[in-house]
Amino acid sequence: MKASTTVLLAGHAAGLGDALRDRFVAGGYTVVGVSRTGDPRWVTDLRDPAATAALFERLDKEAPPLAGVIHNAMQFHRQPFLQTSAQTLQEVWQSMVLTAFNVSQQAVVRLQRNGGGCLVFSGASGSVRAGANFSAFSSAKFALRGLSQSLAREHSQDGIHVAHVVIDGLIRSERTAQRFAQADAAALMEPRDLVEQYWQLFHQPRSGWTHELDLRPMGAGA
Amino acid sequence: MKASTTVLLAGHAAGLGDALRDRFVAGGYTVVGVSRTGDPRWVTDLRDPAATAALFERLDKEAPPLAGVIHNAMQFHRQPFLQTSAQTLQEVWQSMVLTAFNVSQQAVVRLQRNGGGCLVFSGASGSVRAGANFSAFSSAKFALRGLSQSLAREHSQDGIHVAHVVIDGLIRSERTAQRFAQADAAALMEPRDLVEQYWQLFHQPRSGWTHELDLRPMGAGA
Amino acid sequence: MKASTTVLLAGHAAGLGDALRDRFVAGGYTVVGVSRTGDPRWVTDLRDPAATAALFERLDKEAPPLAGVIHNAMQFHRQPFLQTSAQTLQEVWQSMVLTAFNVSQQAVVRLQRNGGGCLVFSGASGSVRAGANFSAFSSAKFALRGLSQSLAREHSQDGIHVAHVVIDGLIRSERTAQRFAQADAAALMEPRDLVEQYWQLFHQPRSGWTHELDLRPMGAGA
Amino acid sequence: MKASTTVLLAGHAAGLGDALRDRFVAGGYTVVGVSRTGDPRWVTDLRDPAATAALFERLDKEAPPLAGVIHNAMQFHRQPFLQTSAQTLQEVWQSMVLTAFNVSQQAVVRLQRNGGGCLVFSGASGSVRAGANFSAFSSAKFALRGLSQSLAREHSQDGIHVAHVVIDGLIRSERTAQRFAQADAAALMEPRDLVEQYWQLFHQPRSGWTHELDLRPMGAGA
Repeated sequence: MKASTTVLLAGHAAGLGDALRDRFVAGGYTVVGVSRTGDPRWVTDLRDPAATAALFERLDKEAPPLAGVIHNAMQFHRQPFLQTSAQTLQEVWQSMVLTAFNVSQQAVVRLQRNGGGCLVFSGASGSVRAGANFSAFSSAKFALRGLSQSLAREHSQDGIHVAHVVIDGLIRSERTAQRFAQADAAALMEPRDLVEQYWQLFHQPRSGWTHELDLRPMGAGA
Repeated sequence: MKASTTVLLAGHAAGLGDALRDRFVAGGYTVVGVSRTGDPRWVTDLRDPAATAALFERLDKEAPPLAGVIHNAMQFHRQPFLQTSAQTLQEVWQSMVLTAFNVSQQAVVRLQRNGGGCLVFSGASGSVRAGANFSAFSSAKFALRGLSQSLAREHSQDGIHVAHVVIDGLIRSERTAQRFAQADAAALMEPRDLVEQYWQLFHQPRSGWTHELDLRPMGAGA
Repeated sequence: MKASTTVLLAGHAAGLGDALRDRFVAGGYTVVGVSRTGDPRWVTDLRDPAATAALFERLDKEAPPLAGVIHNAMQFHRQPFLQTSAQTLQEVWQSMVLTAFNVSQQAVVRLQRNGGGCLVFSGASGSVRAGANFSAFSSAKFALRGLSQSLAREHSQDGIHVAHVVIDGLIRSERTAQRFAQADAAALMEPRDLVEQYWQLFHQPRSGWTHELDLRPMGAGA
Repeated sequence: MKASTTVLLAGHAAGLGDALRDRFVAGGYTVVGVSRTGDPRWVTDLRDPAATAALFERLDKEAPPLAGVIHNAMQFHRQPFLQTSAQTLQEVWQSMVLTAFNVSQQAVVRLQRNGGGCLVFSGASGSVRAGANFSAFSSAKFALRGLSQSLAREHSQDGIHVAHVVIDGLIRSERTAQRFAQADAAALMEPRDLVEQYWQLFHQPRSGWTHELDLRPMGAGA
C-alpha cells in the first residue's frame, strides 16, 4: 500500500484544490485534502497546532510517507481599512499564515526523516504589492511570503524545497466566469494549467530549485 | 495648552524610543509614549482594540490634537523554526502587527478630522529579506510592511502620510555596544541620528512624500 | 522540412548553451545557436542591428518558423569600480543588453506573425542585487531585467510569453567543477537540470505564464 | 575662496536642476551645474570619459573641494518597442548611465581623498517597474539603479554615501502644469520640495545612511 508517497493539500477547496488533487493522483501520489469543511475523513482545523499534529500522526499510520505539502488556504478579503476589525485581521492571518506555520512544522520533521520533499505556498499579487482595501489580506499574504522565504533559507539544506507561487490573476471558477462573462477569456487562469506548475516545482531537480515564481494570464495586460 | 500637537510613540522603549521623544519634544510637540510597561499614565496594551480606543479617547481630552504616530513596537526574535511555537508566532505578530493595526485605526479617523498627519512604522532588514531562524520575526515584519503599504495607498489622499523605515543594522545601546566592543563603532547606528529621519518624514511637504526608505550605518559593508 | 519550428539560442556557448540545444532538439525543435565564435553557419555579431536583421532574414528562408528565442549572452564580469573603464561598461552592456534588444526586435515581429511564441532571458543574482565589484555586470543585468519586464507588458497580448530566469548560483562546467573540487557538489547547478526549466517556460499554457523565476541549487545555503 | 565645498550637478537642467542649485547655494555650497547645453563655463559631454576627466581637473583648480555629486541626467523616453531603434536604446543608456559612471569614477577618487562625500542618483518609477513602451527608458533606469547599488556596497566604507531617489511622479514645470491644468494640483511634485530631500541625503549622519527612498505626491492615488 505504501507504493506511492503522500501529498497533503492544506486548505483544500474546489477549483485549484480539486485540480491539484486530480493532477497529483494522476501522477501516482496519494493525495490528502485537508480543510475545515471538506473530506470528512481528514477535516482538521489547521489553525490549531494540536489538531494539526494529530492529523500528521494519523497520516503517519494511514498514508504513505510524506512527499510534500501544497498550502492553498486562501481567504480573499477586500475591505476598507476603517471597516476592518482587529478580529478580522487576526482571522485572515490565522487562516493563511498560522495554518501554513502549523502544517510546515509537522511536515518539516517528516521530510527531514524522508530525506527531503517539497513545500509550496500559494501567494497572490497582494503578496508583493499591498493595495488600498487590502490591509488584512496583503498583510497576511506578505507574512506568508516572509515565512516561506525563511523556511527556504533554513531548511533547503535538509533537502526540503520551499516554493512560493505568486498567482497574479483570477482563477476560472463558476463564480469568476460569470462575473467576467463579457470579458476576454484570456484574463482568467485555468486551474488545470496552474497545477502543472505545482507539479513541476515538486519535481525540480536539486541542482536548480525555484523559490519564487509568478503566474499570470496572457491577457492580463500591463 | 493646545498650542502644540501630539505625537504618539506606540511601543515606546529606551534607546530609539527615548531619542524620538526627546527630538519631538525639542521640536515643540507633545509626546506621549505608550507601552505595556513604561510611563504609568499611558500604559496600554495596544494589542487590545478596546484598550487602544480608550487610550485615544483619553488623548482626545487630555492632549493636543494628534499630529501622528510612530510605531516602534519591535520584538526582535531569532529562533530555529522547529523550536518556535505557534504561540510565539502569534505573540510576535500581535506585538508588531496587531498593535500597528489598532493604533492606525484610531489614528486615521483623527488625522482625517485634523486634515492630515503622519504614520511611521519601523521595519528591519527582516522586513524585506527573511533569513534562516527568523520565521516568526520576518513573517511579522513582512506583514507590517504590507499593512503600511496598504494604508499608504488607501489614506494618502486624506492627507495622511504613511511611511515605512527599514532599519538595516543594529542600533547602539548599552547591550549592543558591549556586544560589539571590539568591532568598528561605525557598524552601530546612533539613536540620535536615526530620529532625525523620523522628524524629516513627519515634515515632508505633500508634493513629495517618501513611503519607504532604508537606514544603514556607513560601516555596514557589503 | 518545416515540420518543426525554430528556437534561436542567442549567445550560444558551451555548458548551458549546449544543454539547451540538446534539450530542444530532443523535443523536436530546430535549434539555431548563434554567437560570435560558434557554429560558422550562423556566426553573427548580435550587437549589430543590421547583422541581426540579416540573420533573421536568412532564418526566414532556411529554417522552420520561429517558435522563440533563448537569450543567454552572459559576460560575467567582476572588477573593482575604479579599475573598470567606460569602454568595458559599454562592452558588457552591449554584449548582454544590446544583443537582447536586437534579437527581440527581429523576433517579436515574427512571433506576432506566427501567432505567438516565447522569449526567455537569462539573468543572474546580480540582476536583482548589485554587489561590490559588479558595477558593469549588475548594471547590465539590471538593464536586461528592465528590458524583459517592459517587453512582457508590451507584447504579452500578442501571445508572446517573455520570461526572465534569475540563475542564482554557479553552473557546473569543467572550470567551476575544478574550482569547487572540495566543495559540496550540491552547490553547483547542472546544465541538464536548468534546461528543463527553459523547456517548461516555452510550453506554459497561456492561462498561466511565469514572467520571472529564480533557480538556485539546494546546497546554496542562506 | 575655498571656504565652502563644491556640489556638482551632473545633467543640470531647468526645473529640478535649478531648484537644486538654489538650495545648495543657499546652504553655502559652491554649485557647478554641468550639461551639454547649459552654463557655458562648464559645458561638458559627460558621456565622454576624457571630457569628464578634464572637467574634474578644472574643478580641482578652480573650485572648492568636492562634497558630492547629484546626477540628474534624465532623458524621459516613451516609445513603442518596435519603433525604438538600437541607436536610441544606446543613446538613452549613454545619457543616463554612462554619464553617471563617468562622473562617479572621477568623483569617487576625489571623495576618497576628501574623507568622504555623497553621490545621489535620480531614478523614476521606471527604475523599479518597467511598463509597456518604456523598453529604452526603463532598461537604462534599471541599469542606473544597479550601478548605484554596486557603488554603495563598494564605496560606503570610504565614507561615500551613495543614494538612489525614486521620483515616482511628475515634477511641476510649465509643461507639466499646462498638461495637467484641470487636474488636481496635488498630483504634481514641486521642485522646491523635492530638493529638500536631496539636501537631507547629503547631510545624513554616517550612522544612518539611506540608500534608496521614493518620493511621490500626496495626490498620486493608488
